[in-house]
Amino acid sequence: MAHDAPLSPLAPTTIPEIAPLEGVRFAAGAAGIRYAGRTDVMLALLDEGTTVAGVFTKSKCPSAPVDWCRAKLKGGKARALVVNSGNANAFTGKTGAEAVKLSAKIAAAATGASERQIFVASTGVIGEPLDASKFDGVLEKLAAEARPDAWAQAARAIMTTDTFPKLATRKASIGGVEVTVSGMAKGAGMIAPDMATMLSFVFTDAPIAAEALQALLSKSVQSSFNAITVDSDTSTSDTLLLFATGAAKRRGAPKIEKATDKRLADFKKALDAVLLDLAHQVVKDGEGARKFVEVTVTGAESAKAAKRIALSIANSPLVKTAIAGEDANWGRIVMAVGKAGEKADRDRLAIWFGGVRVAHKGLRDPAYDEAEVSQIMKRQEIVINVDIGLGEGAATVWTCDLTKEYVAINGDYRS
Amino acid sequence: MAHDAPLSPLAPTTIPEIAPLEGVRFAAGAAGIRYAGRTDVMLALLDEGTTVAGVFTKSKCPSAPVDWCRAKLKGGKARALVVNSGNANAFTGKTGAEAVKLSAKIAAAATGASERQIFVASTGVIGEPLDASKFDGVLEKLAAEARPDAWAQAARAIMTTDTFPKLATRKASIGGVEVTVSGMAKGAGMIAPDMATMLSFVFTDAPIAAEALQALLSKSVQSSFNAITVDSDTSTSDTLLLFATGAAKRRGAPKIEKATDKRLADFKKALDAVLLDLAHQVVKDGEGARKFVEVTVTGAESAKAAKRIALSIANSPLVKTAIAGEDANWGRIVMAVGKAGEKADRDRLAIWFGGVRVAHKGLRDPAYDEAEVSQIMKRQEIVINVDIGLGEGAATVWTCDLTKEYVAINGDYRS
Repeated sequence: MAHDAPLSPLAPTTIPEIAPLEGVRFAAGAAGIRYAGRTDVMLALLDEGTTVAGVFTKSKCPSAPVDWCRAKLKGGKARALVVNSGNANAFTGKTGAEAVKLSAKIAAAATGASERQIFVASTGVIGEPLDASKFDGVLEKLAAEARPDAWAQAARAIMTTDTFPKLATRKASIGGVEVTVSGMAKGAGMIAPDMATMLSFVFTDAPIAAEALQALLSKSVQSSFNAITVDSDTSTSDTLLLFATGAAKRRGAPKIEKATDKRLADFKKALDAVLLDLAHQVVKDGEGARKFVEVTVTGAESAKAAKRIALSIANSPLVKTAIAGEDANWGRIVMAVGKAGEKADRDRLAIWFGGVRVAHKGLRDPAYDEAEVSQIMKRQEIVINVDIGLGEGAATVWTCDLTKEYVAINGDYRS
Repeated sequence: MAHDAPLSPLAPTTIPEIAPLEGVRFAAGAAGIRYAGRTDVMLALLDEGTTVAGVFTKSKCPSAPVDWCRAKLKGGKARALVVNSGNANAFTGKTGAEAVKLSAKIAAAATGASERQIFVASTGVIGEPLDASKFDGVLEKLAAEARPDAWAQAARAIMTTDTFPKLATRKASIGGVEVTVSGMAKGAGMIAPDMATMLSFVFTDAPIAAEALQALLSKSVQSSFNAITVDSDTSTSDTLLLFATGAAKRRGAPKIEKATDKRLADFKKALDAVLLDLAHQVVKDGEGARKFVEVTVTGAESAKAAKRIALSIANSPLVKTAIAGEDANWGRIVMAVGKAGEKADRDRLAIWFGGVRVAHKGLRDPAYDEAEVSQIMKRQEIVINVDIGLGEGAATVWTCDLTKEYVAINGDYRS
């Protein structure tokens, strides 16, 4: 890695152990894409019948692997996932598309699966051609070694500027049968430097048809991965794939065909929890982050307006530097509400830091105790609430503070 | 001032001397609003018949002075301008509106003008009530002292975190008669910290009707003050007022009634030049700025699309930190183009730093000399060109780099 960054102060104290999940096996290896002395490629083997759903970056210049995955998603089936770190294969033109094709070809030969059921993701430097021939031999070896308990190894192989591997797991019940949702993520900025990308891969043994799986994922992502921001920058490569092996069917789990199926209630909660857990871990590994910030906006004209205002606050450099400086600077919150472009009325606005109201009805709250708020701002987790006072729209987003370390990491990266 | 920040390395080597402009006189004084040992209020007296135009922040939570100016602008006439620094009178509710009213009342008594022709602007801390009674006596004294040559004193009195006063002047000819456009600005962030605000006041002796003046200003601002960004944050108080005293009429200048009048051609150029000069000075005093950056986008689907893409690049923390790190990181430019939401095609994109093409047709330019570009990135003024390759839309915007000093200034401000 370019930086031997110290572990994020917001890192979890322990990395969760992920139990084997029926129908998926992992292996990690070193293909020598860019890094020396570490793994940089992971292979996930998926049992026959695995369904898949995905959501991707909204960038108008997506990477070659994103183009590939979008196209292959139409089949709804997956047998293998290949992910490399060190090179994002983004802005690499036709060469990039050819590199993805070659990766899939090598993976197909190594796993016996059809190329159409191979999913590919890459993370790392933008604009450098990816030499996919380096996967030759490596993927064959990984296919032979793949084990159901190698989650941690897989999560480490996809890291770039991440300071810790990101894993999460939850149990749920579908028709009285226990199923599991487990996943991993990487990303240390919405886009880590030119180490492009937020990637996340989530797996379940629940038997869910591809179309239903896609509907579940598209909804769940709105309040998790689509509700976090580190620096407002959007990667060319953001990829979130959800695979359902269906193995729990053998234990009696019913096959689910529709996302509206009432038997999914518990599963939805587990999926939401895993995605939110992983999304929070990405923020907590935000470049230079020292504080984890939750911003909840209530009383907006609509939920959409609330989210836009919340993201305006969470993306504001002036709000984020104030939090880094442990300053309960509500004037900057007002500024960010004002610039969001949604309806707001200065004389109805109320703002809380850590539950203490600092401003309301267009004025500083006369009851607000500066010493108390000053203590709150020293915490590692900062909660900001803003009530717009106009309607019922509410939204919560998460971000981190903006520190000198962020500038150092991103200003010194390539040089 | 909270920070005794050193002079911006991008500051002009000399502050321009502004010659008297017929019909306007200035005075600066100390009202003790917040600062000690410096001036914090300026008064501009305008001859009878002066017309006025204005553009303001798009914030949905504008300051009380912005509300006041918007309302008074309908009359189209101005006799005095009162500006204080140290307190923005923003997010101050009814108290704020009352403070503006009192300021105008005191100014009216001091100058003999009608309250309806008094314009007011405030810059400084948000959310603290402004004690306008402090203007009592002070404005009377300033009205008596006002002189046509006190431009520099006026420009200094309105500074907050600015490290230098910002002044500009140009000559033009209307119907064969020489007229002048001169102005001042303050602002060291699109919003300087919670020292809210970009303010600019521009004056001309040309005789131009209020409606025409407004049309000229609204157009000119698009490619000057509306084409700069320091940190994407928008103040509650941004105010740009243009006053036309009409004094040149006595020297034979024709009274202009319509913005489409062909005799305005030269005047428009002068107005554009003054606004652009002042806007550039604001960027060059951007908090922590060490580099002045020009971003030109060509080949977009429309001029609007080009400007949106250019601002996406200019506002990207990852692009701005790369420039601070003197890194020709075109991958981040691609990322910023992609996230702008406008049509773009990776395989048609071309990117230049300082005139050297580093990427084209979806690939790194094979001819690009890393050593040459590395030298270019060491310059104080960085020029980035991006061609989208799709249409004829073009736009240029200006910004500065994002440095550790920006974080320090904004993270330590109130504490």
